[in-house]
Amino acid sequence: MEQTTYGLKITLPLAFEQAVAAATDALRQEGFGVLTSIDVQDTLRLKRNREFRKYVILGACNPPLAERALDAEIDVGLLLPCNVAVYESGPDRAVVAAMAPLAALGIVGDNPALAEVAAEADARLRRVLGALEAGAPGR
Amino acid sequence: MEQTTYGLKITLPLAFEQAVAAATDALRQEGFGVLTSIDVQDTLRLKRNREFRKYVILGACNPPLAERALDAEIDVGLLLPCNVAVYESGPDRAVVAAMAPLAALGIVGDNPALAEVAAEADARLRRVLGALEAGAPGR
Repeated sequence: MEQTTYGLKITLPLAFEQAVAAATDALRQEGFGVLTSIDVQDTLRLKRNREFRKYVILGACNPPLAERALDAEIDVGLLLPCNVAVYESGPDRAVVAAMAPLAALGIVGDNPALAEVAAEADARLRRVLGALEAGAPGR
Repeated sequence: MEQTTYGLKITLPLAFEQAVAAATDALRQEGFGVLTSIDVQDTLRLKRNREFRKYVILGACNPPLAERALDAEIDVGLLLPCNVAVYESGPDRAVVAAMAPLAALGIVGDNPALAEVAAEADARLRRVLGALEAGAPGR
């Protein structure tokens, strides 16, 4: 698992569509439903007449955590849902990246209740990526 | 316009539904389409059996800026789209809050091309909120 400046990422030996399905399933295991899905490839083709790689942005939401976050700070909707990006990085290779809530928290300021929720979301998303890495075929 | 730790916000003398329509329209004037819309009230009712205030999270995307951001850094999808939250704050009062890309940029690290895109997105979102404040009925 690689830690980037604002997220975590892994590369899976899977085709893009399989990686999206695996990520969705692994998110569900940690209580995250996928509320939104943005097809970046389609959007750039339609709006920019540009052929881009297969790329999707999933908006993942763990309802109990989201509820606690909103109760801690009403404006926190600006940081929800947790984004998980999946994109192709080669033949039968795909990257899964997740926003790290603890990184996002750096811009949230000083709210202990919110920090606690962010820490739990962060731990869950790390488990999601860990499970994907461990479970990927060919590993 | 109020600057919070991770965003900008204004309060409008409008009912929630009017504020959502006004925000959507003001975003369009600055080239942002609304790609996703999460009804937080519905989600918490359905998933948490909780009555929450009217609250929506709009995922706003300016396609040329998104394309430049993705070309500058492939993982930037984790920070897209730009979230705009609208929620009721009283009878005929609603808050419109926007993620400030320059705040988000604080967690992006050192990428000059990305910094340039974030600065432009930030300026556009400030204009969106400024136009809403100026145009709100009763002002």
